[in-house]
Amino acid sequence: MSEPKRVVPVPGGFLMVLRQGDDVFEHLESLMIEADIPAASIRGFGFAGSIRFGFFDFGRRDYDPRDFTDVEVTGLTGTLAWKDGKPAVHAHATAAGRDFQAVGGHLLGLAVGRGSIEMTITVHDQRLERHFEEDIGANVLRL
Amino acid sequence: MSEPKRVVPVPGGFLMVLRQGDDVFEHLESLMIEADIPAASIRGFGFAGSIRFGFFDFGRRDYDPRDFTDVEVTGLTGTLAWKDGKPAVHAHATAAGRDFQAVGGHLLGLAVGRGSIEMTITVHDQRLERHFEEDIGANVLRL
Amino acid sequence: MSEPKRVVPVPGGFLMVLRQGDDVFEHLESLMIEADIPAASIRGFGFAGSIRFGFFDFGRRDYDPRDFTDVEVTGLTGTLAWKDGKPAVHAHATAAGRDFQAVGGHLLGLAVGRGSIEMTITVHDQRLERHFEEDIGANVLRL
Repeated sequence: MSEPKRVVPVPGGFLMVLRQGDDVFEHLESLMIEADIPAASIRGFGFAGSIRFGFFDFGRRDYDPRDFTDVEVTGLTGTLAWKDGKPAVHAHATAAGRDFQAVGGHLLGLAVGRGSIEMTITVHDQRLERHFEEDIGANVLRL
Repeated sequence: MSEPKRVVPVPGGFLMVLRQGDDVFEHLESLMIEADIPAASIRGFGFAGSIRFGFFDFGRRDYDPRDFTDVEVTGLTGTLAWKDGKPAVHAHATAAGRDFQAVGGHLLGLAVGRGSIEMTITVHDQRLERHFEEDIGANVLRL
Repeated sequence: MSEPKRVVPVPGGFLMVLRQGDDVFEHLESLMIEADIPAASIRGFGFAGSIRFGFFDFGRRDYDPRDFTDVEVTGLTGTLAWKDGKPAVHAHATAAGRDFQAVGGHLLGLAVGRGSIEMTITVHDQRLERHFEEDIGANVLRL
Protein backbone atom coordinates (compact mmCIF):
# COMPACT_ATOMS: atom_id res chain seq x y z
CA MET A 1 0.00 0.00 0.00
CA SER A 2 1.32 3.44 -0.86
CA GLU A 3 1.97 5.95 1.91
CA PRO A 4 -1.14 8.07 2.63
CA LYS A 5 -1.05 11.66 1.42
CA ARG A 6 -0.26 14.14 4.21
CA VAL A 7 -1.29 17.43 2.59
CA VAL A 8 -3.61 18.78 -0.11
CA PRO A 9 -4.16 22.31 -1.38
CA VAL A 10 -7.51 23.90 -0.49
CA PRO A 11 -8.81 27.40 -1.31
CA GLY A 12 -6.66 29.83 0.65
CA GLY A 13 -4.07 27.31 1.77
CA PHE A 14 -3.60 23.68 2.70
CA LEU A 15 -5.18 20.91 4.70
CA MET A 16 -2.72 18.56 6.42
CA VAL A 17 -3.48 15.23 8.06
CA LEU A 18 -0.55 13.80 9.99
CA ARG A 19 -0.40 10.23 11.24
CA GLN A 20 0.97 8.22 14.11
CA GLY A 21 4.64 9.01 14.70
CA ASP A 22 4.72 12.09 12.45
CA ASP A 23 6.53 15.14 13.80
CA VAL A 24 4.26 18.17 13.38
CA PHE A 25 7.05 20.78 13.27
CA GLU A 26 9.01 18.83 10.65
CA HIS A 27 5.98 18.49 8.38
CA LEU A 28 5.07 22.18 8.70
CA GLU A 29 8.64 23.27 7.97
CA SER A 30 8.91 20.97 4.96
CA LEU A 31 5.64 22.29 3.57
CA MET A 32 6.82 25.89 3.99
CA ILE A 33 9.90 25.14 1.90
CA GLU A 34 8.26 22.92 -0.72
CA ALA A 35 5.21 25.15 -1.27
CA ASP A 36 7.23 28.35 -0.77
CA ILE A 37 4.79 29.69 1.82
CA PRO A 38 5.58 33.35 2.60
CA ALA A 39 3.62 33.27 5.89
CA ALA A 40 0.52 31.54 7.22
CA SER A 41 -1.88 31.17 10.11
CA ILE A 42 -2.44 27.63 11.31
CA ARG A 43 -4.85 25.78 13.52
CA GLY A 44 -5.26 22.15 14.36
CA PHE A 45 -6.36 19.38 16.68
CA GLY A 46 -5.90 15.65 17.09
CA PHE A 47 -4.21 13.03 19.22
CA ALA A 48 -0.66 13.55 20.49
CA GLY A 49 1.63 10.67 21.30
CA SER A 50 3.92 13.22 22.91
CA ILE A 51 3.65 16.96 23.32
CA ARG A 52 6.20 19.31 24.86
CA PHE A 53 5.22 22.70 26.23
CA GLY A 54 7.65 25.36 27.44
CA PHE A 55 7.26 28.35 29.71
CA PHE A 56 9.85 31.03 29.14
CA ASP A 57 12.24 31.86 31.97
CA PHE A 58 13.40 35.39 31.22
CA GLY A 59 16.20 35.09 33.77
CA ARG A 60 18.05 32.29 32.01
CA ARG A 61 16.51 33.09 28.60
CA ASP A 62 15.25 29.63 27.87
CA TYR A 63 12.07 27.57 28.13
CA ASP A 64 11.28 25.35 31.11
CA PRO A 65 9.88 22.31 29.30
CA ARG A 66 7.19 19.86 30.33
CA ASP A 67 6.21 16.70 28.43
CA PHE A 68 2.84 15.02 28.26
CA THR A 69 2.03 11.74 26.53
CA ASP A 70 -1.11 10.32 24.93
CA VAL A 71 -3.29 13.41 25.17
CA GLU A 72 -5.92 14.93 22.94
CA VAL A 73 -4.78 18.23 21.46
CA THR A 74 -7.96 20.23 22.00
CA GLY A 75 -6.72 23.23 20.03
CA LEU A 76 -3.51 24.40 18.37
CA THR A 77 -3.09 27.97 17.11
CA GLY A 78 -0.03 29.41 15.44
CA THR A 79 1.69 31.16 12.59
CA LEU A 80 4.30 30.21 10.04
CA ALA A 81 7.00 32.74 9.17
CA TRP A 82 10.75 32.83 8.52
CA LYS A 83 13.81 33.58 10.62
CA ASP A 84 17.32 33.94 9.21
CA GLY A 85 16.15 32.25 6.01
CA LYS A 86 14.68 29.22 7.77
CA PRO A 87 11.08 28.21 8.55
CA ALA A 88 10.00 29.46 11.98
CA VAL A 89 6.85 27.88 13.37
CA HIS A 90 5.29 29.60 16.39
CA ALA A 91 2.37 27.79 17.98
CA HIS A 92 0.53 27.40 21.26
CA ALA A 93 -1.76 24.54 22.19
CA THR A 94 -4.10 23.09 24.78
CA ALA A 95 -4.32 19.37 25.50
CA ALA A 96 -6.06 16.95 27.86
CA GLY A 97 -5.71 13.32 28.84
CA ARG A 98 -8.13 10.79 30.26
CA ASP A 99 -9.01 12.99 33.25
CA PHE A 100 -10.06 15.79 30.84
CA GLN A 101 -8.05 18.37 32.82
CA ALA A 102 -6.55 20.78 30.30
CA VAL A 103 -2.91 21.79 30.14
CA GLY A 104 -1.33 24.18 27.70
CA GLY A 105 1.38 26.56 26.67
CA HIS A 106 3.96 27.47 24.09
CA LEU A 107 4.57 24.46 21.87
CA LEU A 108 8.12 23.08 21.73
CA GLY A 109 7.39 19.71 20.16
CA LEU A 110 4.51 17.53 19.01
CA ALA A 111 4.39 13.98 17.67
CA VAL A 112 1.15 12.38 16.48
CA GLY A 113 -0.22 9.54 18.60
CA ARG A 114 -2.47 6.60 17.80
CA GLY A 115 -4.81 8.46 15.46
CA SER A 116 -4.13 11.67 13.57
CA ILE A 117 -3.60 15.39 13.81
CA GLU A 118 -5.51 17.57 11.34
CA MET A 119 -4.11 21.02 10.50
CA THR A 120 -5.64 23.86 8.48
CA ILE A 121 -3.09 26.26 7.00
CA THR A 122 -4.23 29.69 5.76
CA VAL A 123 -1.55 31.19 3.54
CA HIS A 124 -0.77 34.93 3.53
CA ASP A 125 0.65 36.74 0.52
CA GLN A 126 3.66 38.50 2.00
CA ARG A 127 6.83 37.03 3.38
CA LEU A 128 7.06 37.66 7.10
CA GLU A 129 10.10 37.31 9.34
CA ARG A 130 10.60 36.90 13.06
CA HIS A 131 13.25 39.06 14.71
CA PHE A 132 14.85 38.59 18.07
CA GLU A 133 14.23 41.68 20.14
CA GLU A 134 16.97 42.15 22.70
CA ASP A 135 14.99 44.36 25.09
CA ILE A 136 12.19 41.83 25.63
CA GLY A 137 14.34 38.75 25.01
CA ALA A 138 11.86 37.21 22.59
CA ASN A 139 11.26 36.64 18.89
CA VAL A 140 8.54 38.87 17.49
CA LEU A 141 6.80 38.58 14.12
CA ARG A 142 7.67 41.71 12.14
CA LEU A 143 4.88 43.09 9.96
CA MET B 1 -41.70 36.53 16.06
CA SER B 2 -40.05 34.41 13.38
CA GLU B 3 -37.34 31.98 14.36
CA PRO B 4 -33.88 33.67 14.25
CA LYS B 5 -31.64 32.69 11.37
CA ARG B 6 -28.96 30.15 12.37
CA VAL B 7 -26.58 30.40 9.41
CA VAL B 8 -25.49 32.85 6.70
CA PRO B 9 -23.02 32.46 3.84
CA VAL B 10 -19.80 34.49 4.18
CA PRO B 11 -16.79 34.61 1.84
CA GLY B 12 -15.15 31.20 1.99
CA GLY B 13 -17.90 29.50 3.94
CA PHE B 14 -20.56 30.09 6.56
CA LEU B 15 -21.15 31.80 9.87
CA MET B 16 -23.46 29.93 12.25
CA VAL B 17 -25.02 31.25 15.45
CA LEU B 18 -26.76 28.57 17.49
CA ARG B 19 -29.08 29.31 20.36
CA GLN B 20 -30.15 27.90 23.69
CA GLY B 21 -31.06 24.23 23.33
CA ASP B 22 -29.65 23.80 19.84
CA ASP B 23 -27.61 20.66 19.21
CA VAL B 24 -24.33 21.66 17.55
CA PHE B 25 -23.69 18.34 15.79
CA GLU B 26 -27.23 18.24 14.34
CA HIS B 27 -26.94 21.75 12.95
CA LEU B 28 -23.52 21.10 11.42
CA GLU B 29 -24.69 17.83 9.85
CA SER B 30 -27.83 19.47 8.43
CA LEU B 31 -25.78 22.30 6.94
CA MET B 32 -23.39 19.81 5.32
CA ILE B 33 -26.31 18.12 3.58
CA GLU B 34 -28.31 21.24 2.68
CA ALA B 35 -25.32 23.26 1.41
CA ASP B 36 -23.61 20.17 -0.04
CA ILE B 37 -20.34 20.93 1.75
CA PRO B 38 -17.57 18.64 0.42
CA ALA B 39 -15.36 19.25 3.49
CA ALA B 40 -14.65 22.13 5.86
CA SER B 41 -12.59 23.35 8.79
CA ILE B 42 -14.59 24.73 11.69
CA ARG B 43 -13.96 26.76 14.81
CA GLY B 44 -16.24 28.15 17.44
CA PHE B 45 -16.90 29.31 20.96
CA GLY B 46 -19.85 30.15 23.18
CA PHE B 47 -21.83 28.91 26.13
CA ALA B 48 -22.64 25.22 26.53
CA GLY B 49 -25.65 24.00 28.45
CA SER B 50 -24.13 20.54 28.23
CA ILE B 51 -20.95 19.26 26.68
CA ARG B 52 -19.74 15.67 26.49
CA PHE B 53 -16.08 14.81 26.02
CA GLY B 54 -14.71 11.35 25.40
CA PHE B 55 -11.27 9.81 25.83
CA PHE B 56 -10.69 6.78 23.67
CA ASP B 57 -10.05 3.46 25.35
CA PHE B 58 -8.17 1.41 22.78
CA GLY B 59 -8.74 -1.77 24.79
CA ARG B 60 -12.51 -1.74 24.52
CA ARG B 61 -12.52 0.45 21.37
CA ASP B 62 -14.88 3.06 22.68
CA TYR B 63 -14.84 6.46 24.33
CA ASP B 64 -14.98 6.94 28.09
CA PRO B 65 -17.39 9.88 28.29
CA ARG B 66 -17.58 12.76 30.75
CA ASP B 67 -20.32 15.40 30.86
CA PHE B 68 -20.06 19.00 31.97
CA THR B 69 -22.92 21.49 32.28
CA ASP B 70 -23.13 25.27 32.02
CA VAL B 71 -19.59 25.95 30.88
CA GLU B 72 -18.03 28.44 28.52
CA VAL B 73 -16.62 26.74 25.43
CA THR B 74 -13.31 28.59 25.20
CA GLY B 75 -12.39 27.09 21.86
CA LEU B 76 -13.71 24.44 19.47
CA THR B 77 -11.66 23.20 16.52
CA GLY B 78 -12.71 20.60 14.01
CA THR B 79 -13.34 19.42 10.49
CA LEU B 80 -16.38 18.37 8.51
CA ALA B 81 -16.08 15.40 6.17
CA TRP B 82 -18.07 12.33 5.13
CA LYS B 83 -18.13 8.69 6.15
CA ASP B 84 -20.13 6.01 4.37
CA GLY B 85 -22.17 8.74 2.66
CA LYS B 86 -23.09 10.50 5.88
CA PRO B 87 -21.82 13.73 7.49
CA ALA B 88 -18.93 13.06 9.89
CA VAL B 89 -18.06 15.89 12.26
CA HIS B 90 -14.75 15.59 14.11
CA ALA B 91 -14.09 18.24 16.73
CA HIS B 92 -12.17 18.86 19.92
CA ALA B 93 -12.90 21.58 22.45
CA THR B 94 -11.83 23.26 25.66
CA ALA B 95 -14.32 24.56 28.22
CA ALA B 96 -14.39 26.15 31.67
CA GLY B 97 -17.00 26.85 34.32
CA ARG B 98 -17.20 29.38 37.12
CA ASP B 99 -13.87 28.32 38.62
CA PHE B 100 -12.16 29.02 35.25
CA GLN B 101 -10.32 25.67 35.37
CA ALA B 102 -10.21 24.35 31.82
CA VAL B 103 -11.25 20.89 30.75
CA GLY B 104 -11.15 19.49 27.25
CA GLY B 105 -11.06 16.61 24.85
CA HIS B 106 -12.64 14.90 21.89
CA LEU B 107 -16.17 16.22 21.49
CA LEU B 108 -19.01 13.68 21.67
CA GLY B 109 -21.91 16.10 22.16
CA LEU B 110 -22.67 19.78 22.64
CA ALA B 111 -25.91 21.64 23.33
CA VAL B 112 -26.04 25.41 23.53
CA GLY B 113 -26.73 26.92 26.95
CA ARG B 114 -28.23 30.22 28.05
CA GLY B 115 -26.62 32.37 25.36
CA SER B 116 -25.23 31.24 22.03
CA ILE B 117 -22.48 29.35 20.26
CA GLU B 118 -20.87 31.03 17.25
CA MET B 119 -19.23 28.86 14.60
CA THR B 120 -17.10 29.82 11.60
CA ILE B 121 -17.09 27.25 8.82
CA THR B 122 -14.38 27.40 6.13
CA VAL B 123 -15.41 25.29 3.16
CA HIS B 124 -12.90 23.25 1.14
CA ASP B 125 -13.40 22.38 -2.51
CA GLN B 126 -12.90 18.63 -2.53
CA ARG B 127 -15.00 15.95 -0.96
CA LEU B 128 -13.13 14.26 1.86
CA GLU B 129 -13.96 11.00 3.59
CA ARG B 130 -13.01 9.45 6.89
CA HIS B 131 -11.95 5.81 6.88
CA PHE B 132 -11.73 3.45 9.80
CA GLU B 133 -8.19 2.15 10.04
CA GLU B 134 -8.12 -1.26 11.64
CA ASP B 135 -4.48 -1.15 12.77
CA ILE B 136 -4.87 2.00 14.86
CA GLY B 137 -8.56 1.47 15.67
CA ALA B 138 -9.54 5.01 14.70
CA ASN B 139 -11.18 6.98 11.91
CA VAL B 140 -8.71 9.02 9.88
CA LEU B 141 -9.45 11.76 7.36
CA ARG B 142 -8.25 10.54 3.97
CA LEU B 143 -6.71 13.22 1.71
CA MET C 1 13.27 53.91 15.70
CA SER C 2 9.74 54.19 14.35
CA GLU C 3 6.93 52.38 16.10
CA PRO C 4 6.52 48.82 14.73
CA LYS C 5 3.50 48.20 12.53
CA ARG C 6 0.65 46.46 14.36
CA VAL C 7 -1.51 45.30 11.44
CA VAL C 8 -1.23 44.38 7.75
CA PRO C 9 -3.89 43.34 5.24
CA VAL C 10 -3.74 39.70 4.10
CA PRO C 11 -6.05 37.83 1.71
CA GLY C 12 -9.44 37.61 3.41
CA GLY C 13 -8.64 39.98 6.27
CA PHE C 14 -5.82 41.16 8.48
CA LEU C 15 -2.88 39.93 10.48
CA MET C 16 -2.24 41.80 13.74
CA VAL C 17 0.83 41.59 15.95
CA LEU C 18 0.42 43.39 19.26
CA ARG C 19 3.29 44.16 21.60
CA GLN C 20 4.05 44.47 25.28
CA GLY C 21 1.52 46.73 26.97
CA ASP C 22 -0.93 46.83 24.06
CA ASP C 23 -4.60 46.43 24.90
CA VAL C 24 -6.08 43.77 22.60
CA PHE C 25 -9.68 45.04 22.74
CA GLU C 26 -8.64 48.63 21.98
CA HIS C 27 -6.62 47.57 18.95
CA LEU C 28 -9.41 45.36 17.60
CA GLU C 29 -12.01 48.10 18.07
CA SER C 30 -9.79 50.71 16.39
CA LEU C 31 -9.19 48.40 13.44
CA MET C 32 -12.93 47.78 13.06
CA ILE C 33 -13.54 51.52 12.78
CA GLU C 34 -10.52 52.42 10.64
CA ALA C 35 -10.91 49.52 8.19
CA ASP C 36 -14.72 49.65 8.34
CA ILE C 37 -14.99 45.94 9.09
CA PRO C 38 -18.64 44.81 8.82
CA ALA C 39 -17.99 41.63 10.86
CA ALA C 40 -15.14 39.17 11.32
CA SER C 41 -14.00 35.95 12.92
CA ILE C 42 -10.80 36.19 14.93
CA ARG C 43 -8.27 33.85 16.46
CA GLY C 44 -5.02 34.44 18.23
CA PHE C 45 -2.36 33.39 20.70
CA GLY C 46 0.61 34.89 22.49
CA PHE C 47 1.81 36.07 25.87
CA ALA C 48 -0.50 37.99 28.20
CA GLY C 49 0.80 40.38 30.81
CA SER C 50 -2.72 40.40 32.22
CA ILE C 51 -5.88 38.63 31.20
CA ARG C 52 -9.33 38.94 32.74
CA PHE C 53 -11.95 36.24 32.36
CA GLY C 54 -15.55 36.54 33.46
CA PHE C 55 -18.23 33.96 34.22
CA PHE C 56 -21.74 35.29 33.88
CA ASP C 57 -23.94 35.37 36.96
CA PHE C 58 -27.48 35.35 35.60
CA GLY C 59 -28.85 36.33 39.02
CA ARG C 60 -27.12 39.68 39.20
CA ARG C 61 -26.68 39.97 35.41
CA ASP C 62 -22.99 40.64 35.45
CA TYR C 63 -19.70 38.78 35.10
CA ASP C 64 -17.74 37.45 38.05
CA PRO C 65 -14.23 38.40 36.99
CA ARG C 66 -10.90 36.68 37.60
CA ASP C 67 -7.48 38.06 36.66
CA PHE C 68 -4.37 36.15 35.73
CA THR C 69 -0.93 37.61 35.03
CA ASP C 70 1.99 36.50 32.88
CA VAL C 71 0.35 33.58 31.17
CA GLU C 72 0.55 32.13 27.70
CA VAL C 73 -2.70 32.56 25.77
CA THR C 74 -2.94 29.11 24.26
CA GLY C 75 -5.92 29.98 22.08
CA LEU C 76 -8.30 32.90 21.57
CA THR C 77 -11.46 32.57 19.46
CA GLY C 78 -13.99 35.28 18.80
CA THR C 79 -16.01 37.44 16.48
CA LEU C 80 -16.15 41.14 15.69
CA ALA C 81 -19.54 42.75 15.20
CA TRP C 82 -21.38 45.95 16.13
CA LYS C 83 -23.75 46.97 18.88
CA ASP C 84 -25.59 50.29 18.99
CA GLY C 85 -23.18 51.66 16.36
CA LYS C 86 -20.05 50.71 18.30
CA PRO C 87 -17.53 47.88 17.85
CA ALA C 88 -18.48 44.83 19.89
CA VAL C 89 -15.75 42.24 20.35
CA HIS C 90 -16.84 38.84 21.69
CA ALA C 91 -14.04 36.43 22.48
CA HIS C 92 -13.19 33.45 24.66
CA ALA C 93 -9.70 32.26 25.48
CA THR C 94 -7.61 29.62 27.22
CA ALA C 95 -4.36 30.43 29.00
CA ALA C 96 -1.70 28.74 31.13
CA GLY C 97 1.18 29.84 33.33
CA ARG C 98 4.38 28.14 34.41
CA ASP C 99 2.55 25.13 35.85
CA PHE C 100 0.90 24.53 32.43
CA GLN C 101 -2.54 24.11 34.05
CA ALA C 102 -5.05 25.71 31.71
CA VAL C 103 -7.68 28.25 32.70
CA GLY C 104 -10.22 29.86 30.44
CA GLY C 105 -13.48 31.63 29.88
CA HIS C 106 -15.22 34.63 28.42
CA LEU C 107 -12.66 37.35 27.80
CA LEU C 108 -13.17 40.67 29.59
CA GLY C 109 -9.70 42.15 29.09
CA LEU C 110 -6.29 41.30 27.69
CA ALA C 111 -3.00 43.20 27.69
CA VAL C 112 0.08 41.87 25.94
CA GLY C 113 2.97 40.77 28.16
CA ARG C 114 6.70 40.49 27.54
CA GLY C 115 6.49 39.22 23.99
CA SER C 116 3.59 39.55 21.57
CA ILE C 117 0.08 38.46 20.72
CA GLU C 118 -0.60 37.46 17.11
CA MET C 119 -4.17 37.73 15.80
CA THR C 120 -5.67 36.54 12.50
CA ILE C 121 -8.80 38.41 11.46
CA THR C 122 -11.07 36.92 8.78
CA VAL C 123 -13.41 39.59 7.47
CA HIS C 124 -17.04 38.85 6.52
CA ASP C 125 -18.96 40.85 3.93
CA GLN C 126 -22.10 41.76 5.79
CA ARG C 127 -22.53 44.05 8.76
CA LEU C 128 -23.61 42.06 11.79
CA GLU C 129 -25.02 43.39 15.04
CA ARG C 130 -25.35 42.02 18.52
CA HIS C 131 -28.68 42.43 20.28
CA PHE C 132 -29.42 42.11 23.94
CA GLU C 133 -32.06 39.43 24.41
CA GLU C 134 -34.08 40.08 27.52
CA ASP C 135 -35.30 36.50 28.00
CA ILE C 136 -31.83 34.98 28.18
CA GLY C 137 -30.10 38.09 29.57
CA ALA C 138 -27.30 37.97 27.03
CA ASN C 139 -26.11 39.63 23.84
CA VAL C 140 -26.55 37.43 20.78
CA LEU C 141 -25.07 37.92 17.32
CA ARG C 142 -27.99 38.48 14.92
CA LEU C 143 -27.59 36.93 11.47
